[in-house]
Amino acid sequence: MQGHLTDGVVEVGANGRERYYDSRGYGRPRGDGVALSRVEAAHLLYRGDLDAVDGEDFAAFLAANDDVVVPFLVYKDLRDRGFYVSPARDGWVDDPAGVDFIVHPRGDGPWDGTAEHRVRVVGERASVSLASLGDVVLAVVDEESELTYLETGRSEVSGSSERSFDGTVTGHLLDERVLCWNPPPELYERGFYGQQMSRDDDTLQLSLMEAAYLAAEGALEIEGGVDAVVERGRAVEGERFDRRLAVYRHLREQGVVPKTGFKFGADFRTYADVETVEDLGHSELLVRVLPAETTLSPRDLALDVRLAHGVRKEMVFALVDGASIRWLSVSRLTP
Amino acid sequence: MQGHLTDGVVEVGANGRERYYDSRGYGRPRGDGVALSRVEAAHLLYRGDLDAVDGEDFAAFLAANDDVVVPFLVYKDLRDRGFYVSPARDGWVDDPAGVDFIVHPRGDGPWDGTAEHRVRVVGERASVSLASLGDVVLAVVDEESELTYLETGRSEVSGSSERSFDGTVTGHLLDERVLCWNPPPELYERGFYGQQMSRDDDTLQLSLMEAAYLAAEGALEIEGGVDAVVERGRAVEGERFDRRLAVYRHLREQGVVPKTGFKFGADFRTYADVETVEDLGHSELLVRVLPAETTLSPRDLALDVRLAHGVRKEMVFALVDGASIRWLSVSRLTP
Repeated sequence: MQGHLTDGVVEVGANGRERYYDSRGYGRPRGDGVALSRVEAAHLLYRGDLDAVDGEDFAAFLAANDDVVVPFLVYKDLRDRGFYVSPARDGWVDDPAGVDFIVHPRGDGPWDGTAEHRVRVVGERASVSLASLGDVVLAVVDEESELTYLETGRSEVSGSSERSFDGTVTGHLLDERVLCWNPPPELYERGFYGQQMSRDDDTLQLSLMEAAYLAAEGALEIEGGVDAVVERGRAVEGERFDRRLAVYRHLREQGVVPKTGFKFGADFRTYADVETVEDLGHSELLVRVLPAETTLSPRDLALDVRLAHGVRKEMVFALVDGASIRWLSVSRLTP
Repeated sequence: MQGHLTDGVVEVGANGRERYYDSRGYGRPRGDGVALSRVEAAHLLYRGDLDAVDGEDFAAFLAANDDVVVPFLVYKDLRDRGFYVSPARDGWVDDPAGVDFIVHPRGDGPWDGTAEHRVRVVGERASVSLASLGDVVLAVVDEESELTYLETGRSEVSGSSERSFDGTVTGHLLDERVLCWNPPPELYERGFYGQQMSRDDDTLQLSLMEAAYLAAEGALEIEGGVDAVVERGRAVEGERFDRRLAVYRHLREQGVVPKTGFKFGADFRTYADVETVEDLGHSELLVRVLPAETTLSPRDLALDVRLAHGVRKEMVFALVDGASIRWLSVSRLTP
């Protein structure tokens, strides 16, 4: 059969509806015919199920519509995996904003109005606004045309670790850390604050983050108080310190213990259920703290997600806008 | 015993030489006495082996010399691991430039003039010039005072993969890739160029990188020639495209096959000994291509190195300055 490109869709008349929509879930019906998105038309041309569009074969059609090459690769992959896929066009699916395709649950088709994944297609060189993620799957097409699917979600973070430390401790601000010469043992052993200088030495080294939090809680006595600690933090990290401190505080308030994520290239790793440091479990999350308006390349996302996966943790972004924190989880998906 | 801080070193008279240098490798002799670096003095104060420096105990000495806190933590760790460590001061060790400590081989001491590691101490918030690395170990002290050692080296990259492709192929530039409808099978199967559109489909998708290389070699016929491909590459990546192409070409010339490192957040993963794609081994390196003058935070380095380690590859940076490429390998070290 032949198609005709008009107003951005490829129309196929006569028995198009039965052949393409009813039996195989392409396009949307128009009387006895069917309207196909250009991506769908490319797929039918590729498979040899449509002869030509305005006389163009697959190669010629792609050459004339090179903006559909990348979405075509994703559409083809999802079809190859056995899904029905609807182009996210106005009037074709509910809520098409921000996505390119709706993947229907296995067994469902476009006539069911259901959605398993909302898929946004991006090239690896694109710039992705993190604030725009949370309810979509990113289908990233890399420079060699291989695909990676990244599922994004919004999830609050919470745990059962004891938040409060009832005592007080005296600390000394030295360079980028605070040293406590004789801390109460429960500060480290139960609160998991700081790092011991040696196993057989009580001296505790608090990060500026931990010290700022404890000082604000009235649990750390230090010359100059919390202001001196925060001032030092800003001197070495700028605004990033305030963002990270806001996230640190929020996590502690949620019963989650944040420790440095440095070895994983993240801001924090977190422990949801700390009873004692002796009996510490596996840390569950890697947290990267970023301004809410951050854009990242898919490559950066892939790096973080791959690393987190490799160490059996979940990658979470804390997007900070003043006092507001939005959580964004990102993980690999095999559809 | 008591020490006295003068001209940046702590002098201990009387039997200082025998007690600190001869028997335990601290400082450098001065007659019967010894000159200690401030870091060494801090370590002796910490251990209780020196009573005071100008009346100051360990806490007071650190408070008055807070710039030695970070190097002290590294010195202490290396000592705890059983090494003799010499401060890299002019006249104390050979070639002290760019490093803080010389770690002597196990069993050797400062009197042997040998070096196992040249160690540079950095805080995690520092900015590290990649060009300054290659013969040093970075000892990174993170915000919680934990240590990570990163060994850096300079290593050429080479392999035995067949470089040349003797035929020619016709390609079509579509968006950010080149499609070849009927390529000679050996282009993919032996040269490992491109990515097949499907397993049962000959259509080959070349990256812009692969296409630019093949076109320059006279192996790819494409409208507009190599210039058209490079122009497209620059349009989507800017100067980064030229840097990556220079590295791609160099690797191919060295008998190494570069493929995209996207899934690992890198520019390339590489295969040193490709005979056929069917019989492909594990890729050995992750390559990140950067301008020669790049500075990175230790956190970024830690992320790359950790990821590479997790997927059993070596992390290598290709530092590009025009036509010149310098290779820098970075890996975790447990001293």
